Amino acid sequence: MKSMAESAAQFTPTASPGSLRPIQWLGDLCGTVDMIDQTRLPAEHVILHCRDVQSVFEAIRRLSIRGAPAIGIAAAMGTVLGIRDYEGDLEGFRLHLRKTCEYLAGARPTAVNLFWALNRMQNRAEEILRPAENTAQPVRTDLPQLKHLLLQEALDIRDEDAAMCRAIGDAGWELIPDGGAVLTHCNAGALATAEYGTALAVMYTAQARGRRFKVYVDETRPLLQGARLTAWELNQAGIEVVLICDSAAAHVMKQGVDLVITGADRIASNGDSANKIGTYSLAIAAKEHDVPFYIAAPHTTFDPAIPDGSHIPIEERSADEVRSGWGHSTAPSGVACYNPAFDVTPARLIRGLITDHGLMAPITIQKIADMLSQAMPAIKSTP
Amino acid sequence: MKSMAESAAQFTPTASPGSLRPIQWLGDLCGTVDMIDQTRLPAEHVILHCRDVQSVFEAIRRLSIRGAPAIGIAAAMGTVLGIRDYEGDLEGFRLHLRKTCEYLAGARPTAVNLFWALNRMQNRAEEILRPAENTAQPVRTDLPQLKHLLLQEALDIRDEDAAMCRAIGDAGWELIPDGGAVLTHCNAGALATAEYGTALAVMYTAQARGRRFKVYVDETRPLLQGARLTAWELNQAGIEVVLICDSAAAHVMKQGVDLVITGADRIASNGDSANKIGTYSLAIAAKEHDVPFYIAAPHTTFDPAIPDGSHIPIEERSADEVRSGWGHSTAPSGVACYNPAFDVTPARLIRGLITDHGLMAPITIQKIADMLSQAMPAIKSTP
Repeated sequence: MKSMAESAAQFTPTASPGSLRPIQWLGDLCGTVDMIDQTRLPAEHVILHCRDVQSVFEAIRRLSIRGAPAIGIAAAMGTVLGIRDYEGDLEGFRLHLRKTCEYLAGARPTAVNLFWALNRMQNRAEEILRPAENTAQPVRTDLPQLKHLLLQEALDIRDEDAAMCRAIGDAGWELIPDGGAVLTHCNAGALATAEYGTALAVMYTAQARGRRFKVYVDETRPLLQGARLTAWELNQAGIEVVLICDSAAAHVMKQGVDLVITGADRIASNGDSANKIGTYSLAIAAKEHDVPFYIAAPHTTFDPAIPDGSHIPIEERSADEVRSGWGHSTAPSGVACYNPAFDVTPARLIRGLITDHGLMAPITIQKIADMLSQAMPAIKSTP
Repeated sequence: MKSMAESAAQFTPTASPGSLRPIQWLGDLCGTVDMIDQTRLPAEHVILHCRDVQSVFEAIRRLSIRGAPAIGIAAAMGTVLGIRDYEGDLEGFRLHLRKTCEYLAGARPTAVNLFWALNRMQNRAEEILRPAENTAQPVRTDLPQLKHLLLQEALDIRDEDAAMCRAIGDAGWELIPDGGAVLTHCNAGALATAEYGTALAVMYTAQARGRRFKVYVDETRPLLQGARLTAWELNQAGIEVVLICDSAAAHVMKQGVDLVITGADRIASNGDSANKIGTYSLAIAAKEHDVPFYIAAPHTTFDPAIPDGSHIPIEERSADEVRSGWGHSTAPSGVACYNPAFDVTPARLIRGLITDHGLMAPITIQKIADMLSQAMPAIKSTP
């Protein structure tokens, strides 16, 4: 992969807490897509400089970039890398764009945001091209402008996500008491989004508003996103972190936790929320200890087509994630494993939803419907 | 350690399920102490042949043998290895025995059963020696007999533990429905005891009585005793195992589990039970799903001096168990961790206690007191 260089980043806390960006377009149309290689965290902080669509494909495929919104951004920017050197006519451009998008769609075939971003890029191209055809302008001369407009679309996708994350932070930060303790699971942080994150946006905003608190971070087996990513990014931001095994969370709540905040992968019409395996267990323990349990997610995570959590399919992942680590066998070879990637937390266990359209507590079906009808027209193009 | 040989054991399921013995004295007084090297499981099944007290000390120290009852047995057998070559007078023997026991006590200074077994061996020696002194018999001529009686004492410790485990199995097996699903945590199995185990004794007995069922085994972070040891020994016995991450247990209960059975490290007078970190979380999830939660333990695990769980100190272990694995860093170096080894499950979350003196369900303070006053005189010498 000759077009992907990498460089070591500094390991000092970021000057502006929460301003960590996992992916950025640097420069003009001839620039690079720079991303933090999340597979190397926390041992190394390495930046990948992607100069072609193949490099972005590879980065998505091997999880150098992960988290639904961040994958969408990578796909959009990768599309621009794929088309920026195109020279030819309109039909050729459309074909080239479609092939680029089809190629990128294969990088992680289960990531909904990947398809959403690729569709949005193609729709935008049509929006630009169609009037040009209708007025019979020579499309060839518009190619540079077309490419710039598509780059702008990719940057818009990034900026809209950043704005949603900031809005989530604004909606929830007051929930964190000064001197308090928060507990979180997996990585719903800057690394999963454009910046700031969802659950972690609430913490970054609270920090920016002067609140001091500590965060218990579940390590999040089997892939350890909590230990590897969340502990790292909170550390970078200068927020106090205490890493725990997932199974210690209930014991920690008994000793004193003010609130739990996690992200979500998909939220049904009634508020039932699918998130990383272990979230459901946390929500039950939170109820037992009367600790408020919140989900932070943008309106784009809601799926109005799904009435409740029972309709959310649960992805089952490889047994090897459970029975081996770092090339070592940690269980009898061939032993059966059940490795669900997600579980569903029923709305009744969730004290409130922290969204880019405000804090919703308690949750009702009507409030979710109202929020979505308010949110949908405000966004240019939603999944 | 020239006196410790090792050999590879067969990897086939044991002929008699549940008959796995982690430690055995093989032969007469000139025999060896053979133990499964549990640090090599599940990748290798290696038997250590210990011929001197130093080998047993090392095996205890580096956790080749673990589990409170098994450590006690190892200490008793190690004592015999330490004194069997002694030649000299009575006072010299006493001194030699005391030094041997002091030496072994340093192998794992927090293991209560280690001290209990060493005290019992010394008390037994006094029982034998005192009448001999009183009748002015020449002690020197009694040395071979004395050594044989101490070997017998070590074998008795083993056999008594095996009998308690079998009694636990008899008390609880009917709780497991044919075709059902059990969930367990950590290793409360044959490997932790003389044989059969405590929580796993219930499963082995149910299997022996013809019940067929599957067992969900929590991997049990951070040291993975569930993945490494419980999955292995149930597999060896031909019981169906499904290994899961600890955080998946609540999700699995939602899908269908008939009962949860774990062991305990210490049980207070009111039934509050300390066990491996994560047990409390399981008990809460079990309550949420109305899944009966049982603790299986011999009467020797009860501590009548402690009124309730709040008096049980919680050992905190090294942060490195959480933040690194197999020589790899899984979290930012130096990140703070909280790594409690145990948690306390309140009696109100425990449907019943499965003991060597029967099944107690529901739990009451009076029933525990009655059980202990019935049990204590029946045993020669208790901790």
